[in-house]
Amino acid sequence: MKIAIAQLNYLIGDFEGNVNKILQYVEKAKSEHADIVCFGELATCGYPPRDFLEFSHFIKNANESIERLKAASEGIAIVVGNPSVNPVVEGKDLYNSAYFIADGAVQHIQHKALLPTYDIFDEYRYFEPAHDFELLEYKGKKIALTICEDIWNIGNENPLYKICPLDIHIKNDPDFIINISASPFSYHHAEARLEVLKANVDRYKKPIFYSNNVGAQTEVIFDGGSVVMSPNGLIHREMPYFKECIEYFDLDEVMNGATENAQPKDDIMEIHDGIICGIQDYFGKLGFTKAIIGLSGGIDSAVTAALAARALGPENVWGILMPSQYSSDHSVEDARDLSENLGIKHDIIPIKGIYDEFLKELTVHFKGTTFNVAEENIQARTRGTLLMALSNKFGHILLNTTNKSEMAVGYGTLYGDLAGGLSVLGDVYKTQVFDLARYINKDTELIPINSIEKPPSAELRPNQKDSDSLPDYADLDKILLEYIENRKGPTEIIDMGYDAQLVRRILRLVNINEFKRYQTAPALRVSSKAFGVGRRMPIVGKYLS
Amino acid sequence: MKIAIAQLNYLIGDFEGNVNKILQYVEKAKSEHADIVCFGELATCGYPPRDFLEFSHFIKNANESIERLKAASEGIAIVVGNPSVNPVVEGKDLYNSAYFIADGAVQHIQHKALLPTYDIFDEYRYFEPAHDFELLEYKGKKIALTICEDIWNIGNENPLYKICPLDIHIKNDPDFIINISASPFSYHHAEARLEVLKANVDRYKKPIFYSNNVGAQTEVIFDGGSVVMSPNGLIHREMPYFKECIEYFDLDEVMNGATENAQPKDDIMEIHDGIICGIQDYFGKLGFTKAIIGLSGGIDSAVTAALAARALGPENVWGILMPSQYSSDHSVEDARDLSENLGIKHDIIPIKGIYDEFLKELTVHFKGTTFNVAEENIQARTRGTLLMALSNKFGHILLNTTNKSEMAVGYGTLYGDLAGGLSVLGDVYKTQVFDLARYINKDTELIPINSIEKPPSAELRPNQKDSDSLPDYADLDKILLEYIENRKGPTEIIDMGYDAQLVRRILRLVNINEFKRYQTAPALRVSSKAFGVGRRMPIVGKYLS
Repeated sequence: MKIAIAQLNYLIGDFEGNVNKILQYVEKAKSEHADIVCFGELATCGYPPRDFLEFSHFIKNANESIERLKAASEGIAIVVGNPSVNPVVEGKDLYNSAYFIADGAVQHIQHKALLPTYDIFDEYRYFEPAHDFELLEYKGKKIALTICEDIWNIGNENPLYKICPLDIHIKNDPDFIINISASPFSYHHAEARLEVLKANVDRYKKPIFYSNNVGAQTEVIFDGGSVVMSPNGLIHREMPYFKECIEYFDLDEVMNGATENAQPKDDIMEIHDGIICGIQDYFGKLGFTKAIIGLSGGIDSAVTAALAARALGPENVWGILMPSQYSSDHSVEDARDLSENLGIKHDIIPIKGIYDEFLKELTVHFKGTTFNVAEENIQARTRGTLLMALSNKFGHILLNTTNKSEMAVGYGTLYGDLAGGLSVLGDVYKTQVFDLARYINKDTELIPINSIEKPPSAELRPNQKDSDSLPDYADLDKILLEYIENRKGPTEIIDMGYDAQLVRRILRLVNINEFKRYQTAPALRVSSKAFGVGRRMPIVGKYLS
Repeated sequence: MKIAIAQLNYLIGDFEGNVNKILQYVEKAKSEHADIVCFGELATCGYPPRDFLEFSHFIKNANESIERLKAASEGIAIVVGNPSVNPVVEGKDLYNSAYFIADGAVQHIQHKALLPTYDIFDEYRYFEPAHDFELLEYKGKKIALTICEDIWNIGNENPLYKICPLDIHIKNDPDFIINISASPFSYHHAEARLEVLKANVDRYKKPIFYSNNVGAQTEVIFDGGSVVMSPNGLIHREMPYFKECIEYFDLDEVMNGATENAQPKDDIMEIHDGIICGIQDYFGKLGFTKAIIGLSGGIDSAVTAALAARALGPENVWGILMPSQYSSDHSVEDARDLSENLGIKHDIIPIKGIYDEFLKELTVHFKGTTFNVAEENIQARTRGTLLMALSNKFGHILLNTTNKSEMAVGYGTLYGDLAGGLSVLGDVYKTQVFDLARYINKDTELIPINSIEKPPSAELRPNQKDSDSLPDYADLDKILLEYIENRKGPTEIIDMGYDAQLVRRILRLVNINEFKRYQTAPALRVSSKAFGVGRRMPIVGKYLS
């Protein structure tokens, strides 16, 4: 038996486009004489469709997609995810379902049982969990069909759930397991996924065909990395990350378990590739091609520009240098060097004239006050307004260059440097931005060494340094990681040996700056806990603040 | 038996402050010889605490709050909501619980069974549903303790749920029912709440003591309106909306069912009072007192300023008039008249000089292009930057004046008129803004009639009118209501008799402008479906767009 896995990039709500793409890969699979071709979770409508699921018109479109797939299923079985209607009045209206379509008909539907409702996931908002589990039979093989999270409660050891679908399926002795997923990327996630698959195979001694979605859906990036695992636990194949593709597997060879073929792994490489995928899909799926970026000469905007140039092509990236009276000479030089190294267009628009005009109009109101954050922010917002003006005039999307450390402690100006349609580095800590810069420079110096080595500065007042108002990034990032990713409280972090006053100051800054993050662009998610949809915090509150 | 209901305003995460307040009301209740005093859902930590619940440090603080309440429970029983730890490994880590504390000890804990996971609610993200239901006995009375949603599945007719807690409780024949709630305001919600209580009383023939939280938590407003309903279905008492208070009820009198005493109801009055509550708590809980508002002479900024003046006092509201060369004379006059009527400070800062300076710096880049949205947005962003500069300098919070119709179709400039810390009218359709203006003017003309009667205009180019680019607001708002509040799809709305092309255009505008709403301030929620946390849509997608 020949089984194909097609890890594809879907566009949410684009039923026609998604089904056209699926049909194109069904034809490929047919021409390779595959018996079964597996697509991903909620492939017809794209994942996550969010509250579009609450529209009956949307669900009607999804069901019509299944009709189109039925018509194409002569001579091949199609495994595809689709939202299906719960016929029972009680409970949620929908199931998150896997359809097994062959010989012109839906042969089997298996609903998802374990509905992730944490971090970025809201599945219990929409879906009723499955309670029934039946194998399907096809061409003499018994198949256990599962959806994403359904294989993440091995032997019921995941405290979030109370049932383990495969413990039930296994009683009927399936020949193999198919899992269709929409499992989002974060660095380390591929390792976690392989461990989970291995634990399933160790427990059930059956091969698994795991088909994951690929591509970014706004800020959430799906990495593909579909897996075929042999019953002896060898990774028969781990498919590429961040790339649409189809591959074919002979069941006997998989059973045999003689070969191992996984992808190379490296955190910074994965973050680099994931962000490029995220930029490409944000632009491509919205129908845009060109990005505009404010270049300060610092490392964040340099790394953002380098990633954008790789994602969109240097000809589609426009760097704008906007020096003020507080900008150092080297800032402009570094930004100009960067643009030349990357081969991107760049222009210089000084902001002093506009800034002075703002101050002139505000003279009477600001009289008797001293220079403070108000004046600093006028500079940042002047730059934001210039960038948005060019964006509006010529149809570029402004890329936001703020990093996760700054987002965390609110070191940035709303409507100024926090402006932009997409935050490229908003889930990358400053110390990781340095690693990214070195990774980008591994073959040639694209990012000027000076941008990497000089002390970070916002340059909004004379001789300003980030270290004037922030702790050292090495310390800051470690404490932020414990609080944000690891959800440790102040006592636990202090007990790890960090300075108590510093910990309290940082946690307070994170909490009181929720209002800024609320109004900042979606940030490409590369960690296990990104700001945005996966981290839901009150703006108004008094906790550690 | 004397039962007190204390509907209080809690601050999320402020355990010390919340418990101090609860203790103060416990003392009041003791001095009135109450036997039982009821507080609200998750009163110790404030509702909704969102992802703070994922921090064990937060839960530890909650448990310590219960210790403080135990110490105060001599001679009185305290009913209070608190998150409690699920001792079983499987399932979610927490319960949303009601504690019955008396004689220095927790006498009974009832967990919540029905966990709303829709609209603004994420309860299944955190909580395990209750499966056990037991009455408690106190001073010879059997009491059924329930939490909010637990009474919203009367006779299991709510399709979202599969169990009905009171159907189970009633088998043990309670004397009365207590419900502690955090049930958020929207216009019509008080009516819905009374209907639900009536349906419960009709089914069970038992009195209900319903204690709701009051006050705003960022954008979500809790209206109080706690209810005591007699077994014959009469509203023995509906407590005030948007007001912290405690009231006392004699059980025999409630049983008797001889009196009815409800609050007056009116959609616009409730929206008016709800928004004032929302502004007061946003400022008060964040520790701010002063608001700044851009006054255009139009109705949205006029209504926003009037509401702010009522919420914060006119002495704390600062109106800034920022005319451009496209502003009509009457705009400045109307805004000045408004300021004088309201008694608020106002200043005029013309934007022409700054706008011209922006255009000067952009001359070379804009060469050969024609005036379009880019130039319009520079004006709006110049105003945004001026307002934020004053806000930053003097510690005002900028109030956003955009209405729901504009938010829906993206008629506004990000970082310009869409700037601000809190959106006052972002859940109020334009047609409702007119109603609000007339309501505010019911005694005296505070909002100049001219602001109400002139055709709406953004005044960003010569002789611009909203009607140049938008459909008539009366039509627009009706179609938006069907799509947003009523979640009807295009076919259903067209079938209602609306022009097909207009419907498709409007629904498309709503969907493609999700990126703007993502970066806009939280909007005080007054309807059953507000933009923001209760309406979760992808930015990147292709559905009706």
